[in-house]
Amino acid sequence: MPSVWWKDNAVQLIDQRLLPTRLETATLHTVADVAASIRDMYVRGAPAIGATAAYGMALAARLSPATDRKDLLDDLKEAKQVLDAARPTAVNLAWATSRILATLRAAPTSDPEDLRGLALAEAEALAAADVEINRRMGANGAALIPEGANLLHHCNTGSLATVDYGTALGVIYACHEQGKGIHVWVDETRPRLQGARLTAWELMRAEVPMHLIADNASGSLMRQGRVDAVIFGADRVAANGDVANKIGTYNIALLAHTHGIPVYCVAPTSTVDLNTPTGDDIPIEERDAAEVTRVGGTVVAPEAVPVYNPAFDITPARYISAIVTEEGVCHAPYGLSLAAAVARAAET
Amino acid sequence: MPSVWWKDNAVQLIDQRLLPTRLETATLHTVADVAASIRDMYVRGAPAIGATAAYGMALAARLSPATDRKDLLDDLKEAKQVLDAARPTAVNLAWATSRILATLRAAPTSDPEDLRGLALAEAEALAAADVEINRRMGANGAALIPEGANLLHHCNTGSLATVDYGTALGVIYACHEQGKGIHVWVDETRPRLQGARLTAWELMRAEVPMHLIADNASGSLMRQGRVDAVIFGADRVAANGDVANKIGTYNIALLAHTHGIPVYCVAPTSTVDLNTPTGDDIPIEERDAAEVTRVGGTVVAPEAVPVYNPAFDITPARYISAIVTEEGVCHAPYGLSLAAAVARAAET
Repeated sequence: MPSVWWKDNAVQLIDQRLLPTRLETATLHTVADVAASIRDMYVRGAPAIGATAAYGMALAARLSPATDRKDLLDDLKEAKQVLDAARPTAVNLAWATSRILATLRAAPTSDPEDLRGLALAEAEALAAADVEINRRMGANGAALIPEGANLLHHCNTGSLATVDYGTALGVIYACHEQGKGIHVWVDETRPRLQGARLTAWELMRAEVPMHLIADNASGSLMRQGRVDAVIFGADRVAANGDVANKIGTYNIALLAHTHGIPVYCVAPTSTVDLNTPTGDDIPIEERDAAEVTRVGGTVVAPEAVPVYNPAFDITPARYISAIVTEEGVCHAPYGLSLAAAVARAAET
Repeated sequence: MPSVWWKDNAVQLIDQRLLPTRLETATLHTVADVAASIRDMYVRGAPAIGATAAYGMALAARLSPATDRKDLLDDLKEAKQVLDAARPTAVNLAWATSRILATLRAAPTSDPEDLRGLALAEAEALAAADVEINRRMGANGAALIPEGANLLHHCNTGSLATVDYGTALGVIYACHEQGKGIHVWVDETRPRLQGARLTAWELMRAEVPMHLIADNASGSLMRQGRVDAVIFGADRVAANGDVANKIGTYNIALLAHTHGIPVYCVAPTSTVDLNTPTGDDIPIEERDAAEVTRVGGTVVAPEAVPVYNPAFDITPARYISAIVTEEGVCHAPYGLSLAAAVARAAET
């Protein structure tokens, strides 16, 4: 089951805010609705956000009343601005909207209706490519994981974070499909609990052996020798291999590094931003205090308490053992290996 | 306002499970109720648990129908077993119940009514001593903290974790009273959220500048140079200085150590267990899965998900810069400094 798809001239996606208690589809009929679904995290995960934004561009093309190429492209540029502004950290968002726009600009036709069809075809191709890329990353990453390994996984990087299959969770699915006998420590990933709500739900459906833990239990497990590798995705990878990912990634990466445990980041080349030299150049989104002070309807902190709630952190490349892409496994020095992987992806 | 006290021939305590939304007192009329209040965490924090258990012994003495010294002591030994079994990790529990029993055994009277009065007087003395000890720890610890420091605090170690004032939070209160201009990062402390629910509530009442953070944000703050010291309490300190404390303590201690940030444990000598050679000899309580899978009435994980939920972790002494006691600041080698502090406490 994909996380996002096109049906009945609208963008359809799983409203992930309702999981694990309810599995419901949201149908989005306007570009503003698509942007809101990204901003309000109906959908999250860099690749899933990218696919959603691509479908959002297809929707913008369909809704545009333009009768010529120029007006249509102007409407799409406007839609791109609305969509790109929805979340500042994930590079896949602007990558996906740019790709749709570039496809239409390069199109051999000027007929608006043809261009509308092309926008949708390109969004569908982007979504299909995401799944295919994830399966290649899964195979590439699984080769790094020994039999019977205990893997610590952060946030959600599975079917729900992508169009389907997943990035870091795709590696876990690949290991499981290969019968490697792995076991996963799923950290709950406060504040939004993507590990507890989404990853635990996915792994239980796939019957992958797992235990859910509070984020605070990760260090103790490492000290006890019960973690063989740490694995996570990325919202953006800088040119030097620094990784922006869900808040808490830096904690487990540094803890693992200190314990001599390998640290693997799994991210498609679309997440690598060669225009961002280092992690310090990546904007870090701060989110609402209520993500920390409320869980569902339950108030867990005093009213009006000051809160610092960054959505992401930066893990310096020196703490990352390898970055797994669809174009192969990149090692330090990442400046070279990532640029080569991106170049290979551009060729295909 | 103390966390636990004696009134109307019963043990009274703040039902901390209801904070921060409701401030309510629970009145406990039986030893079983006192044990349940410890087990079910109406009250938590090693010193507060100790005082509650001491009052529980006074209650047992009052309720005992014994007409001679021997029968009364037998009833108290039975009560001690019930109370000590309530939680396995906190050493103050057995320390407090043993102290009441030893006082009665050493008493120059055999009159049951006199012994009942003595049990209560000893419990009151233990509670009063806790507050006095906390103020001394506060002064000792404040001397370590520079002006304008940003302190990262874990769990709750304040008035609510003790009879009043607190251990690590007592140091913070002392800094604040001295006008040091400190600011506190309060981590929420999943799974039970003592930081969000209790420490944030206490610090806001005391008007100490603070921000609440998800546990996952601690590493990022350290990397940004926004943490000057990490400070926490202890549920048990082993003879070699290894510290058992709330799960997640090890994470922040190791992260701070790696960043060159000082790590301070604040614990009264009653928390030091010279009979426990190292942290690996401390039993670690595992608690119910529901602490992770539910927050209040909100379900945050799939039904029947397997959970690993240790309540505490062990921080090896090598990651701890100093252990602050009421008898002074202990430094490595802790085997010597802790034994000396315990000996000084025994003399007074």
